[in-house]
Amino acid sequence: MTVQLKEGVLDPEAETTREALERLGFELEALRAADRFEIDLEAADSEAAYDRAEEMAERLLANPTIHDYEVSIEDQ
Amino acid sequence: MTVQLKEGVLDPEAETTREALERLGFELEALRAADRFEIDLEAADSEAAYDRAEEMAERLLANPTIHDYEVSIEDQ
Repeated sequence: MTVQLKEGVLDPEAETTREALERLGFELEALRAADRFEIDLEAADSEAAYDRAEEMAERLLANPTIHDYEVSIEDQ
Repeated sequence: MTVQLKEGVLDPEAETTREALERLGFELEALRAADRFEIDLEAADSEAAYDRAEEMAERLLANPTIHDYEVSIEDQ
């Protein structure tokens, strides 16, 4: 699952990283940072896994006021 | 680009997140956290973009002692 600030929400950490890269001589147009969570869980099927992951995002991992999140499922 | 702690490196932040999810009643087997950086840059081709991103990882975004990183390129 990837949790990222919504467009328009300031991200001073990403801004600092971009400036540090520029000080090192790199040229870049934009840098966006996101948190990725890889979660192993048992579920009956992909749909059940997706629902559980979505609930984890809603209840803890993302703040709906400022974050967008994206869930993807990998069978194992 | 995704920057993640190498296997075997302790990640107290991920551990805390896992515990918080369990306190909320979620059952999960493992949780790994990673940082994802989305960087826009001009480059002659995908290979040049890849090399630049890899250099950014080596010089700033990842610490080779504790991190693995993975670069993927998207044409725009």
